[in-house]
Formats: sequence, structure tokens, C-alpha cells
Amino acid sequence: MASQKTSSNVVWHHATITRETREELNGHKSAVLWFTGLSGSGKSTLAHAVEEALYKKGCRTFVLDGDNVRHGLCGDLGFSIEDRTENIRRVGEVAKLFTEAGTVVLTAFISPLKSDREAVRNIMPHGDFLEIYCAAVLDVCEERDVKGLYKKARAGEIPEFTGISSPYEAPVDPELEVNTGELSLEASAEKVLNLLTVRGIVT
Amino acid sequence: MASQKTSSNVVWHHATITRETREELNGHKSAVLWFTGLSGSGKSTLAHAVEEALYKKGCRTFVLDGDNVRHGLCGDLGFSIEDRTENIRRVGEVAKLFTEAGTVVLTAFISPLKSDREAVRNIMPHGDFLEIYCAAVLDVCEERDVKGLYKKARAGEIPEFTGISSPYEAPVDPELEVNTGELSLEASAEKVLNLLTVRGIVT
Repeated sequence: MASQKTSSNVVWHHATITRETREELNGHKSAVLWFTGLSGSGKSTLAHAVEEALYKKGCRTFVLDGDNVRHGLCGDLGFSIEDRTENIRRVGEVAKLFTEAGTVVLTAFISPLKSDREAVRNIMPHGDFLEIYCAAVLDVCEERDVKGLYKKARAGEIPEFTGISSPYEAPVDPELEVNTGELSLEASAEKVLNLLTVRGIVT
Repeated sequence: MASQKTSSNVVWHHATITRETREELNGHKSAVLWFTGLSGSGKSTLAHAVEEALYKKGCRTFVLDGDNVRHGLCGDLGFSIEDRTENIRRVGEVAKLFTEAGTVVLTAFISPLKSDREAVRNIMPHGDFLEIYCAAVLDVCEERDVKGLYKKARAGEIPEFTGISSPYEAPVDPELEVNTGELSLEASAEKVLNLLTVRGIVT
């Protein structure tokens, strides 16, 4: 009896719930919207605005940003080049897991290095990684200085601050470039939503 | 005109889509089902069976296990005590992100150390972490040896193999103990689903 009762445990149970079945349940496809740009260029703001619009359509979404990653998953990392690369690598891997879970995941990190962003693109199935360049120029970002970081960076209180004392490598051929320094939030979000429609991710 | 157009970007955009709004959209609450037990105790098998049952109820779920974590997010880690602890820490942080996304996340890792499991429990809001002990005795797990790992461990080919040459600290007061060495898969899954109903996570 015991062997009969345990028999079904012995066989390896294949995962029957896949990305495809989840996408079917959700009524939309999953993808990574990778927002990149200077501090203050509006990445997080735009990501949350797009998320809100997607939620209203009944889509499953999640925003990964410094607020929910830097104190937790990447709490052991600092801001050296090596640690920033590892930070972006982990965020990329988590974003990939979220796409497997059927989610439209929006990431909002400066991610200044082309090589880091390309590494993330390359772990994903082709077409999953949508690079969205929040192209506000430094002057605009510094004038906004929402978090007061530019002031600190200029005062030398923050070493290796992107745009001031550390390079930002703009995307050469992003899936979308949004001039977040000029456009309204609504118009910016509209451009992202349009990209998702054109790509067949949402209807 | 330009200042008017950009005004809405300057204000910090709060995240309006929260765990609660996602749970409402999904029609169930999120939680972490943390399966722990020896290699071959049926953690992954049970997790996938529970996921299948939840999917049929329309629930949003995701299984984190060695297959989708060890080669990606934790691909830089080995199997030393320190690396296993860091592996479990990262899995815990990712599981937390998934609960914030409204998902019932099921994790299937041996996670042999009480301290590692408690550390994960403690980063979560109270009630989110449900420890499920897959309590198959070593003899049963070794007899099954689905992956042939016990044979290799006995031959000394795998150092620090849990249950053979490395300790397994069984949970003292888990939310659920399932005798996966005796019960059928169906009966085991039923116990987990019952826990979720009792806790008000799914209906």
C-alpha cells in the first residue's frame, strides 16, 4: 500500500503552468520595459504612469526600481562600477523571472553602461527586452533635482554620480526614445503604450 | 509653454498600483509557500501540483526553484554554507517582490538551515511566509533518488550533500508539515490548498 500511495510522487512532475498559459490567463503578453536615463530624467515617474494605465486595462505589471531592490535583493551592493554592474545583472534576472510569470515588468534604473544593458537584453528571449531611453538632457535633470542629488554631487558629496563624475552611455538604437525633458507625462506614457500595442504585447 | 508641458514630470509620481490593488484584480491574496525538505522529498513536485490547482482556480502563481534561479540570479554562487545562505537570502527577496506583485509564490529549495529560513520569514510582513515541511525520511528520499544525487553523494562525488554529509535542520513549528514520504501527491496538495483556504489567501 505504501508504495502504491507514494508512486505518484516518484515521477518527476513537469511544470504544466508555463509562461504561455499565464499569458493566456492574463489576456496579454509579458515583456520587460527597461527605462534608462539620467537621475531625474523621469524613469520611475514614467514607469509608474505606464503601470497605472496598464492596470486600468487589467494587465499584470510590476515596477522594479531602487526603492524595492536596493534595500533588499541588492542590499549587499554599493555604487562602484562592479557593484552597479552586479546590481543591473540581478535586476535583469529578476525581470526575466517576472516575464516567465506572465508579467509586464517595468524597470527604472539609470543603468548608465551599454554593456550592462546589452547583457540583460541577451539573457532574454528575443523581443522581450524593450529599451526605453528617457532622453532628458543633463541641464533639465539638474534643474529639477527632485531628490537634491545633483546639488550633493556638485558639492562632491556623492562620488561617481552619473552625468557629473561618472559616464552615461546613451542607447544607440533603443526600442523607444522619449524626450521626457520636453513632453508631458501623459504624452510620454502614450508613446510607451503605443509601443506595447505595436509589438502585440497588449491590445 | 515648455515649462507647462513638463510640469507634470516634476512632481514625484507615487505608486498608485499597490499590492492591495493587485490582490483585488487577482481575486486572491499573495503569500510565500516555502517548501523545505531533503533532496527527493517532493518539494518541487508538490509545489508544481499546488500551482496547477491554483491556476485552475484562476490564481496568479510562480514557482522559484533551482531550475530557474541557480543558473540565473544565483549563477555566481556555489554550494558552500555562505553561498547557500546568500542563495536563500536572494530567493527570499525575490519571493517578497512577487508577493508585492500580488502573486502566490512557491519556493522549492532544500533550505536546510533554520537560521536561513527564519531570516526570510523576518523580511516579510507577518503572515506572508508559510513554511511547508516536506517530511519524507532520508531512507525514502535516498531510495527514490530521482536525480541520482544520493548515489553520487554516497560515492563521495558531491561534497556537503544535505542529509549525508551536511545537516538538515527540520522546522520546529512550520505552518504545515506534509508527510510526502507516505501521502500521495494529490493528498499532499490538498493539505496545502486547505492551508491557503484556512488562511484566507484563496477561496
